[in-house]
Amino acid sequence: MAAVESNRVVVFKGKTHGDFIYEDEICVAFEVEGKQAPVHFVVVPKKIVPSLCDATDEDEILLGHLLLVSRRVAKTLDLTSGFRVVMDEVRTAEPGAQFHVHVFGGRQMLWPFG
Amino acid sequence: MAAVESNRVVVFKGKTHGDFIYEDEICVAFEVEGKQAPVHFVVVPKKIVPSLCDATDEDEILLGHLLLVSRRVAKTLDLTSGFRVVMDEVRTAEPGAQFHVHVFGGRQMLWPFG
Repeated sequence: MAAVESNRVVVFKGKTHGDFIYEDEICVAFEVEGKQAPVHFVVVPKKIVPSLCDATDEDEILLGHLLLVSRRVAKTLDLTSGFRVVMDEVRTAEPGAQFHVHVFGGRQMLWPFG
Repeated sequence: MAAVESNRVVVFKGKTHGDFIYEDEICVAFEVEGKQAPVHFVVVPKKIVPSLCDATDEDEILLGHLLLVSRRVAKTLDLTSGFRVVMDEVRTAEPGAQFHVHVFGGRQMLWPFG
């Protein structure tokens, strides 16, 4: 996975995406391969932030923005019964890793969450 | 669950917590009942925000702060192999619901995430 490479293309886990369901100056959102629910998309910052542990205090607004966009896109996709937002922090991240927010819904969420 | 009621006490899902593992002017963090992993805590804003869908654009910094605190506390608790951050958005939230961020780790995370 790599960061956003242009305004219209992102390479995510080896696959090129240009099919954004949301884009602004800070981030993009798109559906992922291997969906884990009827609706499953990721929100990815354009700025390179390999992981949450690499985010600095200056990224506070960026991180908050990703959550607001998660909510905005979920509303657009009419996830009326709710949705789950997940971030996985892996300390052994692969080269080129990029922080991303999973949002999924459209089915009953299970507990515990993985 | 209710919002933080004082500097030192929070009522969360009917249980009073004063055993904060982190506190600042914006939020608190504490371990929850019914842990789903060896380490499982929540980060709760002091400001009343019932759900992510109730957050406004003015809460961008607040939301980012919760993620930075999630990371900070996870580091403090030495979650060296990684951790998972989860927010559940339920449209039929109970009265007094308060937005909170789950952080858990200390075991292998499963996929899909619930």
